Amino acid sequence: MFHIVLIALGVAGLTLVFAAFLVRAILRQPEGSERMREIARFIQEGAAVFLRRELRALSVFTVVLVLVLTFLISPGTIHAELGVAFALGTAASFGSGYLGMWIATRANVRTAGLVTVSFTGAMRTAFFGGAVMGSVSVALGLIGLTSLFAAFPAEPEVWLAYAFGASSVALFLRVGGGIFTKSADVGADLVGKVEAGIPEDDPRNPAVIADLVGDNVGDVAGMGSDLYESYVSALAATMVIALAPALNLGVDYALFPLLMGAVGLLASMAGILAVRPRRRAEGYEQEARAARSALNVGVYVSTGVMIVAGYFAAQFLLGQDGLFPFLALVTGLVGGFLIGLSTQYFTSEYGPVRGIARAGESGAAINVMEGLSVGFLSTIPPILVVAGATFVAFFLVETGSPGSGLYGIAVAAVGMLVTLAMLLATDAYGPIADNAAGIAEMSDLGSDARERAEALDSVGNTTAAIGKGFAIASAALASLAWIATFLVVAEVTVVPILAFPLTFTEVGVFIGLLTGGLLAFVFSSLTLKAVSSGAFEIVREVRRQFRDTPGLREGKVQPDYEAAISLVTRKAIRAMFLPGLLVLVVPLAVGFSLGAEALAGLLLGVLFVGFLLAVTMANSGGAWDNAKKLIESGLHGGKGGEAHKAAVIGDTVGDPFKDTSGPSLNILIKLVGKVAVIFAPLFALIAVM
Amino acid sequence: MFHIVLIALGVAGLTLVFAAFLVRAILRQPEGSERMREIARFIQEGAAVFLRRELRALSVFTVVLVLVLTFLISPGTIHAELGVAFALGTAASFGSGYLGMWIATRANVRTAGLVTVSFTGAMRTAFFGGAVMGSVSVALGLIGLTSLFAAFPAEPEVWLAYAFGASSVALFLRVGGGIFTKSADVGADLVGKVEAGIPEDDPRNPAVIADLVGDNVGDVAGMGSDLYESYVSALAATMVIALAPALNLGVDYALFPLLMGAVGLLASMAGILAVRPRRRAEGYEQEARAARSALNVGVYVSTGVMIVAGYFAAQFLLGQDGLFPFLALVTGLVGGFLIGLSTQYFTSEYGPVRGIARAGESGAAINVMEGLSVGFLSTIPPILVVAGATFVAFFLVETGSPGSGLYGIAVAAVGMLVTLAMLLATDAYGPIADNAAGIAEMSDLGSDARERAEALDSVGNTTAAIGKGFAIASAALASLAWIATFLVVAEVTVVPILAFPLTFTEVGVFIGLLTGGLLAFVFSSLTLKAVSSGAFEIVREVRRQFRDTPGLREGKVQPDYEAAISLVTRKAIRAMFLPGLLVLVVPLAVGFSLGAEALAGLLLGVLFVGFLLAVTMANSGGAWDNAKKLIESGLHGGKGGEAHKAAVIGDTVGDPFKDTSGPSLNILIKLVGKVAVIFAPLFALIAVM
Repeated sequence: MFHIVLIALGVAGLTLVFAAFLVRAILRQPEGSERMREIARFIQEGAAVFLRRELRALSVFTVVLVLVLTFLISPGTIHAELGVAFALGTAASFGSGYLGMWIATRANVRTAGLVTVSFTGAMRTAFFGGAVMGSVSVALGLIGLTSLFAAFPAEPEVWLAYAFGASSVALFLRVGGGIFTKSADVGADLVGKVEAGIPEDDPRNPAVIADLVGDNVGDVAGMGSDLYESYVSALAATMVIALAPALNLGVDYALFPLLMGAVGLLASMAGILAVRPRRRAEGYEQEARAARSALNVGVYVSTGVMIVAGYFAAQFLLGQDGLFPFLALVTGLVGGFLIGLSTQYFTSEYGPVRGIARAGESGAAINVMEGLSVGFLSTIPPILVVAGATFVAFFLVETGSPGSGLYGIAVAAVGMLVTLAMLLATDAYGPIADNAAGIAEMSDLGSDARERAEALDSVGNTTAAIGKGFAIASAALASLAWIATFLVVAEVTVVPILAFPLTFTEVGVFIGLLTGGLLAFVFSSLTLKAVSSGAFEIVREVRRQFRDTPGLREGKVQPDYEAAISLVTRKAIRAMFLPGLLVLVVPLAVGFSLGAEALAGLLLGVLFVGFLLAVTMANSGGAWDNAKKLIESGLHGGKGGEAHKAAVIGDTVGDPFKDTSGPSLNILIKLVGKVAVIFAPLFALIAVM
Repeated sequence: MFHIVLIALGVAGLTLVFAAFLVRAILRQPEGSERMREIARFIQEGAAVFLRRELRALSVFTVVLVLVLTFLISPGTIHAELGVAFALGTAASFGSGYLGMWIATRANVRTAGLVTVSFTGAMRTAFFGGAVMGSVSVALGLIGLTSLFAAFPAEPEVWLAYAFGASSVALFLRVGGGIFTKSADVGADLVGKVEAGIPEDDPRNPAVIADLVGDNVGDVAGMGSDLYESYVSALAATMVIALAPALNLGVDYALFPLLMGAVGLLASMAGILAVRPRRRAEGYEQEARAARSALNVGVYVSTGVMIVAGYFAAQFLLGQDGLFPFLALVTGLVGGFLIGLSTQYFTSEYGPVRGIARAGESGAAINVMEGLSVGFLSTIPPILVVAGATFVAFFLVETGSPGSGLYGIAVAAVGMLVTLAMLLATDAYGPIADNAAGIAEMSDLGSDARERAEALDSVGNTTAAIGKGFAIASAALASLAWIATFLVVAEVTVVPILAFPLTFTEVGVFIGLLTGGLLAFVFSSLTLKAVSSGAFEIVREVRRQFRDTPGLREGKVQPDYEAAISLVTRKAIRAMFLPGLLVLVVPLAVGFSLGAEALAGLLLGVLFVGFLLAVTMANSGGAWDNAKKLIESGLHGGKGGEAHKAAVIGDTVGDPFKDTSGPSLNILIKLVGKVAVIFAPLFALIAVM
């Protein structure tokens, strides 16, 4: 055991050093003109305001939960280690989110500064910005889990509490962040309609910085905390399942995910270094293609290294028996890749998006219907992939050692996430390039440079869409593994959903399932509502500033950017309260009133329904977005035509779909599982009483 | 047993006589002016075209299935009785739908003819039109089930095949009809935009008759066949569960639903006769209120009679033991009532609808978001009611006789549907009043008469919305009972969805659940898409007629109404093919590859997800509709303002939500269950081989 722990810690440490080099490489780049630096400073300050406020709310939440975990989970005994592990998990996740935002809001201006000089330099700077967060967060996750495993090898609750900490941060950064980003974005969009002559990206628009901050909040900190949570959960769940008495696979199987995590970090570093766009690219099309293929090379390299090195590492740890777990891992890896392809099909310029664009000719209503129809249909590949991966991974491990197939499913979840550092780097590249394009636009760069920035940004849109699909599928698979750990912790052997004749247990599970599905719908309702009312408040604030600030409309006076940012931040944190409360209260209510089996039913209900809904929302949103872009490129009457007006409406509906409600469902799916696992000992207690 | 069979057949026969009197009472009324009769004839002919085409497609489908049931279900033996029962179920359901449309398209013009003369007479004529279909279909259902039970007391498959027949018709009339009605409606709406100067309800619009036919197709034949199917399924499932060896409650318990059905018919007749609007009403507000309270009195009377007479009937059949089944029946009855209230809250002029109307001020996108948010939220009461009713009904019967709680759930489903004849009368009143208002509009009646027709119509909108909520909830409860019969037929004792350690069975159930949920999403995608492309074809056809028919624009030449009707009918039948195929193929594929437990998982997945999605769609659609009406009544800038334009877009998106995709999910939920039950013997056969 000891050498695996050392390897994991060593590789993670090496990754942190690697990240430090990346930071240095980014900060060495020039920051561009005075104007660019000024805009960048506003974004940096705005991001800091958001994160400080989030931290304040999160701290209260963390303190309460640390106390609960320490003193209440098993009344009479004090479990300081649970509280500490939870706090560490929170700190690691929030810390990586903070660092990710910090470097992203510095890489953006440097990318913008470089577009005039060097395409390659600009592209790599944006990508390295993303790579910092990717490497640091995954490395911290691995260090945390490995250390806690080494320190408390017989107390799985401690590892699980660490994952619970990551979940809490994801709630704040993904749900709160999602509400922030889309309230700002939709609000800024609508301003043009209510305050004539002030377009979305105009520096006189007081919401413009909030919008740019929002890109970082949603797609850097939000996406990062979400995927990080899945990563930690998948690893922790696999460890718990390996050591569960009913399977008792032994400590080597518990170390397997940690070792694979280390290999994944190495593979990711190789992938990150392999991202080198071709130097000779020129013009929008060529540059976009060069950037896209550079990112693809990175993903292929990391996947290839992972498969080859993973095979030998599995043999090294488990000998001949390592083959089946290794193949289960590959199942997950391949599954993630397939979901990326399907997301691309449904949200890029293929049939479905073209159909939505065409539908715009018959007006906004038909555009909206078509987009929803595409979203509903796009659930087919992810669902089949997750179902297929579950089956294959189970089958493989079950064949190798009968009775332990469940371990295979958990390992498949690990496999989907094992090269996360590379994937996160790709995801976070998007908002940095997007910000760089915004800065280029606002600081009146030459049209060549602006076009280059747009080319980089367009690639980011695709990676962001793929990232969303991937985030959902991995959340689903990780949650499935996590629900299995709930059975271990709650000592449930079977969850029957129907029986003949029926008993109270099945009725409870049935009600649990229904309630779980309901929770996903209610969560979507609340987050959608939060965005529509947040956008409304932004519009009001912008109107107020134009009314009360003389000279603002003429561009003589700087708008009060911070007021808009504070407003959306407050709104986002307030709007998070009820969904956050539901996630805590509903599982507890079901668990205490109907028992652990019913609670397992609830977890599954949330998982099924949330998964379907999240995929629909993410893909509808992405498809509407690109249908609008397709029209703007000149189809169906081009920008300003009737089809374009319809497409703008579809795109605006899609904004909260893909960036707020959809991603928030990932958090819901995972967080209810955490609550169930952490409070499971109490259900047992009540049952005894 | 014999006397209960006689009672059921006697009461059902009496109901048919009652319906004949209603028909005579309607046909005796005057038909109004020449112009009205002309329009009515177009509608009648259009409805006949639609039904003939549907019948042709349905006949092919029926012949194939009769052959399959007769020869293939248990290879080697011939089961003519299964094929015959299926054909009878088809004939009874299609026959009632046909009669319902026939009388509705005659009651509409007479209602329009009466509005100038007598408010009371007009209201009762419209209502009696609905009552004919309600009484006849429920009576035929009861006669069919009772006779088959008496003839084949030891062959439950025969009763189930009868219900399967009803399901097939519901597929054609509800799914096909839903696509027809909304393609015509949305197409007619959009015509105004592309062909300036031709509003939706203008007689020069070639799609206008298709739109009016569509109201009858969707809300008379579609709604009728849907609820009829639930009724027959709930009764048949209860009978099967009562006689299942594991429960073995005895033949009296199998007769209980038939007896309650007879009592429900008596209660419904009492309710129908109690619908007598106050004579003194004058003006829009008063008349609408009078019509609404007259319908409410009818519902209260039928519910009251049902409870009192049901109690004594239960005592008569089961003695003291009858109390708990009776209370389970009341649970369902009360549940249906509560769902009606909640639908009213979310879709009438209360907070949610007002919020959607207000959101229109910020544009169409915010209006759409708010509407979806309301739809998602509106799932809370129906889900909690169905979960609650399930639990209470189970608990009650389980208390009375331990081990047979499942019977209680089935009886609750019967309870929700037992006064169906009255409820259907109320539902079908809506489209008749709607048609009457359309005829009044098109035949240039005086403004007083038009206002009166509008008042009758406005009440119909509310009853239609309530009917939709009720149809979904009763479909869910009836399907739950039906899934239990699948366990009986497939001889499955328990369906485990998770276990520790996991086995292939749970993995199969898990995949089944996921696939079931997926099916609901794909179904919604296909039906939405069918409407958007059907509407597109209607727009093209209207354009063609205006281009090719000189004098049409000036109103000198009659448009070719039938061309539009044939077009949508063909489109609707073609668009039904793929969803219909999926409903057949997917359950069979899951059953044969993963086994009966996995198929049970699929049924549950469809039920959960379909239920949630159907409620969301129905209520979003209803809420958007009334938000638009609220604005048209003068709020937020009134008709023609920005908020109104936004509301029109929301309302158009809502059209296929509430009238096509939402209701189609009811059919999906129920039909997969039928396929599973009917083909269950084959799975067993394959398992043995």
